[in-house]
Amino acid sequence: MVRRIEHIAIAVKDAEASARLFETLFGVSRGQMETLPDERVKVAFFELGGSRLELVEGIGADNPMGKFIQKRGEGLHHICLEVEDLPETLRLLHAAGFPLIDSVPKPGSRGTKVAFLHPRGCNGVLIELVEQPSRA
Amino acid sequence: MVRRIEHIAIAVKDAEASARLFETLFGVSRGQMETLPDERVKVAFFELGGSRLELVEGIGADNPMGKFIQKRGEGLHHICLEVEDLPETLRLLHAAGFPLIDSVPKPGSRGTKVAFLHPRGCNGVLIELVEQPSRA
Repeated sequence: MVRRIEHIAIAVKDAEASARLFETLFGVSRGQMETLPDERVKVAFFELGGSRLELVEGIGADNPMGKFIQKRGEGLHHICLEVEDLPETLRLLHAAGFPLIDSVPKPGSRGTKVAFLHPRGCNGVLIELVEQPSRA
Repeated sequence: MVRRIEHIAIAVKDAEASARLFETLFGVSRGQMETLPDERVKVAFFELGGSRLELVEGIGADNPMGKFIQKRGEGLHHICLEVEDLPETLRLLHAAGFPLIDSVPKPGSRGTKVAFLHPRGCNGVLIELVEQPSRA
């Protein structure tokens, strides 16, 4: 079961410039900018109530974020939903016929587990699912 | 100042069919389906933590949601952010150079006031701002 919208991600050409723009728009300071070489992205994020908004810039040649922008322009890229038990959620969604990009969870940032669902099963929306690390 | 992500809206061809799909995906029942003739949309929404996810189907000939889908396909359409003082926020954003679709607030559902910012000022993202009715 989905608990909440963990974040919304926006594909941008220049995360630094966009972070300044959204700081003005939101009246809120961004968090620390992060570069994730494995995922070939640079990310700026904002805490907004119980959710986050992420600005994502692709880095390096032929990165997926750059290809997205080339095709569709800058804009909304994906949403991330928090679930309680990610392996069980993936099993249920697969059984219900949802096409999965990741059929098993992969490690996300800060000890999380994440997996993406294919947008063709979700009305064109790219959906990431995240399970927070257990506090036990 | 932005308080939280109030909702995310997804443009869909058939709100009823999509609501069934997302009920399975979320493991959560939708709220009441609403038809808003003035805005020419039919809407299904889901409560997810402190935010909502809305499925929006256009109704009638040449409706804006149908045109969006024709051009870009089904998918993420806009995000709505809650602000404290909408007229003052619009004044500040206009002064900062943000292009506004609505320069003055218009009535939204349930006594709210809403206004849209133009996506060309927001990295391609269509942003709705909402002010909740005062409880005084």
